[in-house]
Amino acid sequence: MEISTVTTNYEANTASTITIKGILSLLMQSIDDNNDKKVISLGIGDPSVYTSFRPPHVAEEAAIDAIQSEKFNGYAPTVGLLQTRRAIADYLSHDLPYKLSSDDVFVTSGCTQAIDVSLEMLAHPGANILLPRPGFPIYELCASFRHLEVRYYGLLPEKGWEVDLDSVESLADQNTVALVIINPGNPCGNVYTYLHLEKIAETAKKLSTVVIADEVYGHLAFGDNPFVPMGVFGSTVPVLTLGSLSKRWIVPGWRLGWFVTSDRCGMFRQPKVVERIKKYFDILGGPATFIQAAVPRILEQTQEVFFKKTIDILRRSANICCDEIEKIPCITCPHRPDGSMTLMVRLNLSLLEDISDDLDFCFKLAKEESVVLLPGTAVGLKDWLRITFAADPFLLEDGLKRVRSFCQRHARKL
Amino acid sequence: MEISTVTTNYEANTASTITIKGILSLLMQSIDDNNDKKVISLGIGDPSVYTSFRPPHVAEEAAIDAIQSEKFNGYAPTVGLLQTRRAIADYLSHDLPYKLSSDDVFVTSGCTQAIDVSLEMLAHPGANILLPRPGFPIYELCASFRHLEVRYYGLLPEKGWEVDLDSVESLADQNTVALVIINPGNPCGNVYTYLHLEKIAETAKKLSTVVIADEVYGHLAFGDNPFVPMGVFGSTVPVLTLGSLSKRWIVPGWRLGWFVTSDRCGMFRQPKVVERIKKYFDILGGPATFIQAAVPRILEQTQEVFFKKTIDILRRSANICCDEIEKIPCITCPHRPDGSMTLMVRLNLSLLEDISDDLDFCFKLAKEESVVLLPGTAVGLKDWLRITFAADPFLLEDGLKRVRSFCQRHARKL
Repeated sequence: MEISTVTTNYEANTASTITIKGILSLLMQSIDDNNDKKVISLGIGDPSVYTSFRPPHVAEEAAIDAIQSEKFNGYAPTVGLLQTRRAIADYLSHDLPYKLSSDDVFVTSGCTQAIDVSLEMLAHPGANILLPRPGFPIYELCASFRHLEVRYYGLLPEKGWEVDLDSVESLADQNTVALVIINPGNPCGNVYTYLHLEKIAETAKKLSTVVIADEVYGHLAFGDNPFVPMGVFGSTVPVLTLGSLSKRWIVPGWRLGWFVTSDRCGMFRQPKVVERIKKYFDILGGPATFIQAAVPRILEQTQEVFFKKTIDILRRSANICCDEIEKIPCITCPHRPDGSMTLMVRLNLSLLEDISDDLDFCFKLAKEESVVLLPGTAVGLKDWLRITFAADPFLLEDGLKRVRSFCQRHARKL
Repeated sequence: MEISTVTTNYEANTASTITIKGILSLLMQSIDDNNDKKVISLGIGDPSVYTSFRPPHVAEEAAIDAIQSEKFNGYAPTVGLLQTRRAIADYLSHDLPYKLSSDDVFVTSGCTQAIDVSLEMLAHPGANILLPRPGFPIYELCASFRHLEVRYYGLLPEKGWEVDLDSVESLADQNTVALVIINPGNPCGNVYTYLHLEKIAETAKKLSTVVIADEVYGHLAFGDNPFVPMGVFGSTVPVLTLGSLSKRWIVPGWRLGWFVTSDRCGMFRQPKVVERIKKYFDILGGPATFIQAAVPRILEQTQEVFFKKTIDILRRSANICCDEIEKIPCITCPHRPDGSMTLMVRLNLSLLEDISDDLDFCFKLAKEESVVLLPGTAVGLKDWLRITFAADPFLLEDGLKRVRSFCQRHARKL
């Protein structure tokens, strides 16, 4: 085999894919070390790095007890421990008009692995998948490894980042295997209404396609719309629900997620399909057995007050973020976020003198102000920015004040 | 999309693949509940279920400390924490004539995920891979998902299960991307000599193929041959070394493994290749960050006495196993194991009256004696059996005595 062989084939696709972590790492490198300003990163959605966001004690206690019991050092079934699957089924069933069974739940190594399972299970030669733009780039990267064609539908900023269903209908064909929605939304902070989700389900049904509902930010809704899981429409259309402990429990590094077939239609209950899913799990390294063992207690015993505190901080942070943004003429937020941990703002380059695009903006900002924002290009929208508001409020204020002075310094002289 | 679409394409391959866990689960189901004999499973290689095999205290302490520090609840870099990669590089370098760098090490969710990474990185349309027979069926299953053709080379029981290099040479062609060796061996208990590994390296070099060295049982050698890592020959041929904490530290459920490029030739150091590997890690859910954080302490502080104790128990168990087997006329062990946790025995069906094959043997044995052995068919050798000797000695003795009485009961009357 030649060395070149390793890089051929799908390289063309994967090499062109931008990853959030890749861009953020370049931005961090471009920070001027001689600058004595503290680095403020509003680039990545990992709240665990901030003191305002701590996991509940019960999570740590449950994991430590599971280790100390010495009962969970061995292999779990590759689809997950039965008690873990059952606990996740019960947790998700609270918000559904039917009851999920443990057989509907597969335990994954974070939501990332749940994305891979969904795409691998649906991929076949010629198949395509509909992704939101802006969206989460891991879907595109995963699709390129699993040989799925990607088609982007739009989200409508003036309509609270709702799915552009006309665009979905015009993109879909008989080879469309799934429509991906992210709700609550990353990067847009959207929380869809029951009515809009119902329309999405009906559109997917009409197009004979599955809905992949990425609910990794499930329940992190602080605006007017309550969080409604897509699984509510599992009788209309087969839904694959992806989620994890990561965001709601502030333990993204624990890598405990789930792939759930919220599918009253039975498409994913055929013996052959179930067998294929199970075999795929046999080749995956799942999450640690003792973390799985901690899940029932974590899901059952986390206090409501913990969740409320997170929601309150997120609401406050989102408000600080939007208020500061309003003071900056060259960036506008078309829709105040209703949930999740990030929002999107539009960059008005005509108001800036020497900034060529969103990447240029972010690199100069990092260098001059030691503030890291994510260029919209990384999530599919050129000349926009993604700002993570799940940060300590004082850092958020400080960071956005620096963005303001950066923008003032670079403002086009009229 | 039609329901059938989900099951098409690679279904034919994957559906036919036997998994060890699949067969063992069927065997457990066939145990007669009315039988009052305690169930003894010598089927799976998970020593953590036996009291003789406990992880070292430092492992549990390090993991608990990492949780309690609250520093490791967030995301790790997808290729692994730097300190973890460095510690694994240092650990493996002890036994190599050169020093691995942290860049050579990628942290995986157990050795299983390291297998997937290797196969995905080498797969391209038309490519094939050489697997040992008998072997570990996850390779075949993974190859079917990653669209790699599998070709089986033989292991030579009369030569300590050495690789049949003639068979390797006759199978390889210009599309052969890797030769997989498992050393110390599962299922055969082989530990290859320096000389044999050197010959494997030279053969692979001649065939211009990479060696994937599955060393998940690394250092678990209790016979005459010391364990020599394949990476020793990294200057002759590119070696991908796969390993984990699972077996040597008795924590298979922790899902902490590694994919290491022991490649002095530089094939896997090309920027494009490195980029592709990193992107693949972006779509994988890796091991929990706090477990990664525990790794440096685990690797550096586990006492030699702990390793020695494991080796002593394995040697004793292997001897008990072989001694008991010698008392059973219809099964023979062609080569006493030198390492790992399993051995292979040949079934002489002509000495049995009403047993049609290895599967029939194992199902009847489970039903009548509540003893579970793995049919050789599951690892590619029909009418052989795989016996896990990493079990509590008294259970091993009891289990094999029951195998003996089963064989006596079913012996062909002369």
